[in-house]
Amino acid sequence: MPKKKLIGVIGSGTCSEAEAKTAEEVGRRLARQGAILVCGGLGGVMEAACRGASSEGGVAIGILPGEDRQSANPYVQIPIVTGLGYARNVVVVKSAQAIIAISGSYGTLSEIAYALQNDIPVIGLNTWSLSKNGQVDQSIIPARSAAEAVDMALSLATG
Amino acid sequence: MPKKKLIGVIGSGTCSEAEAKTAEEVGRRLARQGAILVCGGLGGVMEAACRGASSEGGVAIGILPGEDRQSANPYVQIPIVTGLGYARNVVVVKSAQAIIAISGSYGTLSEIAYALQNDIPVIGLNTWSLSKNGQVDQSIIPARSAAEAVDMALSLATG
Amino acid sequence: MPKKKLIGVIGSGTCSEAEAKTAEEVGRRLARQGAILVCGGLGGVMEAACRGASSEGGVAIGILPGEDRQSANPYVQIPIVTGLGYARNVVVVKSAQAIIAISGSYGTLSEIAYALQNDIPVIGLNTWSLSKNGQVDQSIIPARSAAEAVDMALSLATG
Amino acid sequence: MPKKKLIGVIGSGTCSEAEAKTAEEVGRRLARQGAILVCGGLGGVMEAACRGASSEGGVAIGILPGEDRQSANPYVQIPIVTGLGYARNVVVVKSAQAIIAISGSYGTLSEIAYALQNDIPVIGLNTWSLSKNGQVDQSIIPARSAAEAVDMALSLATG
Repeated sequence: MPKKKLIGVIGSGTCSEAEAKTAEEVGRRLARQGAILVCGGLGGVMEAACRGASSEGGVAIGILPGEDRQSANPYVQIPIVTGLGYARNVVVVKSAQAIIAISGSYGTLSEIAYALQNDIPVIGLNTWSLSKNGQVDQSIIPARSAAEAVDMALSLATG
Repeated sequence: MPKKKLIGVIGSGTCSEAEAKTAEEVGRRLARQGAILVCGGLGGVMEAACRGASSEGGVAIGILPGEDRQSANPYVQIPIVTGLGYARNVVVVKSAQAIIAISGSYGTLSEIAYALQNDIPVIGLNTWSLSKNGQVDQSIIPARSAAEAVDMALSLATG
Repeated sequence: MPKKKLIGVIGSGTCSEAEAKTAEEVGRRLARQGAILVCGGLGGVMEAACRGASSEGGVAIGILPGEDRQSANPYVQIPIVTGLGYARNVVVVKSAQAIIAISGSYGTLSEIAYALQNDIPVIGLNTWSLSKNGQVDQSIIPARSAAEAVDMALSLATG
Repeated sequence: MPKKKLIGVIGSGTCSEAEAKTAEEVGRRLARQGAILVCGGLGGVMEAACRGASSEGGVAIGILPGEDRQSANPYVQIPIVTGLGYARNVVVVKSAQAIIAISGSYGTLSEIAYALQNDIPVIGLNTWSLSKNGQVDQSIIPARSAAEAVDMALSLATG
């Protein structure tokens, strides 16, 4: 029996309604296609994605920064308690076979950077753009919708 | 819907046949009682416990020290890739609501110490004994069988 | 006696001659002004900065990703061995009161992101530029020379 | 110029006067013999050892669990800020070429276990005793005095 794919969803712990709607749809579509959602387990984009996965009977894993499993949002089925603070971002990224970044702040940027350093595909929905010395870095693959992001992530999640 | 309990099973990456048999029975009984097994994801006691859980349709999570999900034993359903080396022991322990220690070497001892530091119950099957300045420390709760260890772990896993 | 300031220098493990020259001058100037250099302890920009600090009798700390203190470049006086892989980037950043980023790749980007998330000042020398949703993020403070970068870092290192 | 030896001193964050006296003497003797002291940077045994090192002009490094360099005891010259919680114990241990354990609780036990797992010599002063399945484990080398512990640690710190 082939293992299920683990797809990471990253974004801020507080987010706009539009971002939450996108994240929820990402979570729903991942669950419908049989993927396991892995995220940081807290609020905002993470909670919306977990709610989406949960609404379709999917599995949502939350890799928590703190010491307390109660800090997970209510839609996390499997809380992984690290106590590592934001060094846990590394674990979120490495556990995923592809990453969907939804908007996000500096924590999300650190996760994008870790993913690119580890050759883990990053699909972006209105997220960071990078350039170095005036040269644009095009490693983040832009998606136009939750549906497109999920399709791309699943097809690239081969590692 | 109440969340499933996460029970940690710790022990060496290589083990005797008797230890493997015990670990497998622990895994089977945890799965039958609806608990999720969390372990370090490698061989020996970890693999035997995952094999037991898997044989009963249970979920086994492997918190891996390395960078490669392929390093998980074949019975791990959900590989968590940390890249943290043996600092990942902390994550195994904190993610569990109770720990069953089966024999084990110094890595297992570090996990027992972390669990006791965090007030996570530790059930021991032929594992370490501790004393300090001539005083025996009785924090590790001894069990006489896999069945007893699983019953104790589930009843103590309230945190 | 006031404690010495800890300044982080981040950049790639392999670098151009021009980048090495800049890093070495940064290291020299930090040492001359009595600051302690903290970096990832490996080659490239890290080694050049340590060489500069060492040539002026300064202290260079290397926070190593691996398990072996021998992996430090020869100018590291104090090797901190983490075994955490690239999660050690978090430790480099948090230990510094200000960061000087010299060019760099995705590992450096993850460190910049962690620093900005933690309100640690980041001075950039030909390094990453960030924007989100078409809006330029100006949190990285650009410097035009090693001398200017060191002066900025020392004056901002108040945390 | 040969690098200075890094010797770890581990023990509880609160301790008796007798333990503090021992730790302070360990710190003084390490400094006099030119070794760098590495510890967890907090109070109790750690603070006493740092005070001893400081009183002899030695260098004391504190590997802090939290996010704040101000949490270091006042005798730490070089605070390493990890934000990793007690996973930082791994970094204390791996950075040291030998460990002196003074009494201590479960956190100290986790550090002893990590050191033994990594073949780092552990000298014990009234600390834990270990046995497994009725067999005593004699890996912790007992010392009868601070002087003897320091001499043993320095002669064994060859890795």
